[in-house]
Amino acid sequence: MKHMTSLILAADIGGTNIRAAIMDSNGKLSHERRQQALLSSPHTSESDVIDILADFFRPLLQQEPALKAIGMGFPGFFIGQSGILSASPNLPKLHQFKLAERLSNTLNIAVIVQNDALCAAVGEQSFGAAQGHQNLLHITLGTGVGGGLILNNTPYTGESGMAMEFGHLRVCHDADANLCGCGALGCVESYASATAISAQYFKLSGVQRCSKDIYKEALSEGTHAKDVIEDAGHKLGMAIAEAVKLLDIHTISISGGFIGAWSLLHPTIMESLNKNLIPPLQGKIEVLPSILHDDAGLLGAGKLANMVVST
Amino acid sequence: MKHMTSLILAADIGGTNIRAAIMDSNGKLSHERRQQALLSSPHTSESDVIDILADFFRPLLQQEPALKAIGMGFPGFFIGQSGILSASPNLPKLHQFKLAERLSNTLNIAVIVQNDALCAAVGEQSFGAAQGHQNLLHITLGTGVGGGLILNNTPYTGESGMAMEFGHLRVCHDADANLCGCGALGCVESYASATAISAQYFKLSGVQRCSKDIYKEALSEGTHAKDVIEDAGHKLGMAIAEAVKLLDIHTISISGGFIGAWSLLHPTIMESLNKNLIPPLQGKIEVLPSILHDDAGLLGAGKLANMVVST
Repeated sequence: MKHMTSLILAADIGGTNIRAAIMDSNGKLSHERRQQALLSSPHTSESDVIDILADFFRPLLQQEPALKAIGMGFPGFFIGQSGILSASPNLPKLHQFKLAERLSNTLNIAVIVQNDALCAAVGEQSFGAAQGHQNLLHITLGTGVGGGLILNNTPYTGESGMAMEFGHLRVCHDADANLCGCGALGCVESYASATAISAQYFKLSGVQRCSKDIYKEALSEGTHAKDVIEDAGHKLGMAIAEAVKLLDIHTISISGGFIGAWSLLHPTIMESLNKNLIPPLQGKIEVLPSILHDDAGLLGAGKLANMVVST
Repeated sequence: MKHMTSLILAADIGGTNIRAAIMDSNGKLSHERRQQALLSSPHTSESDVIDILADFFRPLLQQEPALKAIGMGFPGFFIGQSGILSASPNLPKLHQFKLAERLSNTLNIAVIVQNDALCAAVGEQSFGAAQGHQNLLHITLGTGVGGGLILNNTPYTGESGMAMEFGHLRVCHDADANLCGCGALGCVESYASATAISAQYFKLSGVQRCSKDIYKEALSEGTHAKDVIEDAGHKLGMAIAEAVKLLDIHTISISGGFIGAWSLLHPTIMESLNKNLIPPLQGKIEVLPSILHDDAGLLGAGKLANMVVST
């Protein structure tokens, strides 16, 4: 029972915002701390990352000496549970970077680090929309479209930490398909990310509008926003169908500002999903909106650290 | 060491052909027995299946009293390792059929049964092209296109035994995409199965030819067969890319008569696969031809049974 009170410094590291809080074993957060920090420059070095994170975490470590570990979600590919970052698309100078080990040596505390979308999946499964499900595909709709997979209660990383590149499933093979940031045509990310939503809206309306406003406008009939969100939902349903046909996984959760238009988005996704499944899988898949929102990654990272210190 | 000599009755049950042999722990087969048996009629009942299989296995069981178990690959969806067939597309009367238990009670020997494509994956990993790999996606190109997945040395079945419906990944979204047997348009099966190869060849040439002859003809320049096989290879590469982006799995094996045209097929698959992967995965994936051919399913089924009786 002593582990029930283990305190973890949980953190969610983004390209422009970094965030941390103290988390107890029940997922209760306190002492939250946020900071803008440019962690997506082509010049950012390993030492830059360690310096920025160490400076950011130190006040919390000093405030709460009982902290057992740091659990951190980070954008990039991690090799298994090693804490070694093999690569990070927005931090091209980092390769085979022993992030957990170096930060642990600097701060003198255990550090557990995992891919940010995978942390969000763990968060939703442990404390959020997918509690009680042993298998989960969690989809994050933000600047990009990410995915995290849990199989039999175990976070799935793949052979080189690059599993669940869900955003790069192809949902359109037309010659005029949208161009994705990865260089390919027709990836679901190029239709359903927040960036794509704004770009598609601009293409239809000629008006520049942020994705959050588009989600609101989409709830009214006859708007360009409605068309854009319906197309995104349709494409998401197609991509989810491909994942389900491979994995036979029955629970999907989705996070991101996008779910502000859930009453429109959900039926569109479900229609497209079921249309694209083989008959015996039709009607068996549940698609749930995140209930943790921005906290999913933080809570999942804390949970992973908690599991390590409790064993 | 005593388990090294465990003898298994290994079997591969197809829609029209059933096959069995005695297998030792090293995958050596003997006393092979084949039979034509219609196991794909809409009227086939549970009792029909048990009667056909029991009559077919009895002579082998009598011949070798030391047999420890029957290991059997069967076309259909199995719930985990339970031996319960939830459904079989070509045997519509079977639902939640306790196949392993009923056959075991009838023949008085342990019966281990699993999906046929998954057995083939286990066979290639244990004795064939993918020996030494912990993770494998095995693709079977026959009347249909199937898939079997091994993650961390464990056969992956999914939540309802329907994982790796690889043949139904969509590789074409055009309105004139090929119609698949599942009712959807543009599934990879509708381009790369033996049936599809013959149909595509007929469409181009007006000549009815069996798939094996088409593979041979494909090795000559300027033939319709070459065009058909290249298109199939291109579509297979696209579908493999989708699976790799989700699973980050680096070893793929392929079985079926199709690999008779491997010298043409392999470069076509690789080009299409790498073109459709995200950059960090490009060049990392190995696609291997089966070396076990028709024996993969039989050997994998035997291996699964051997693992059960050895523990």
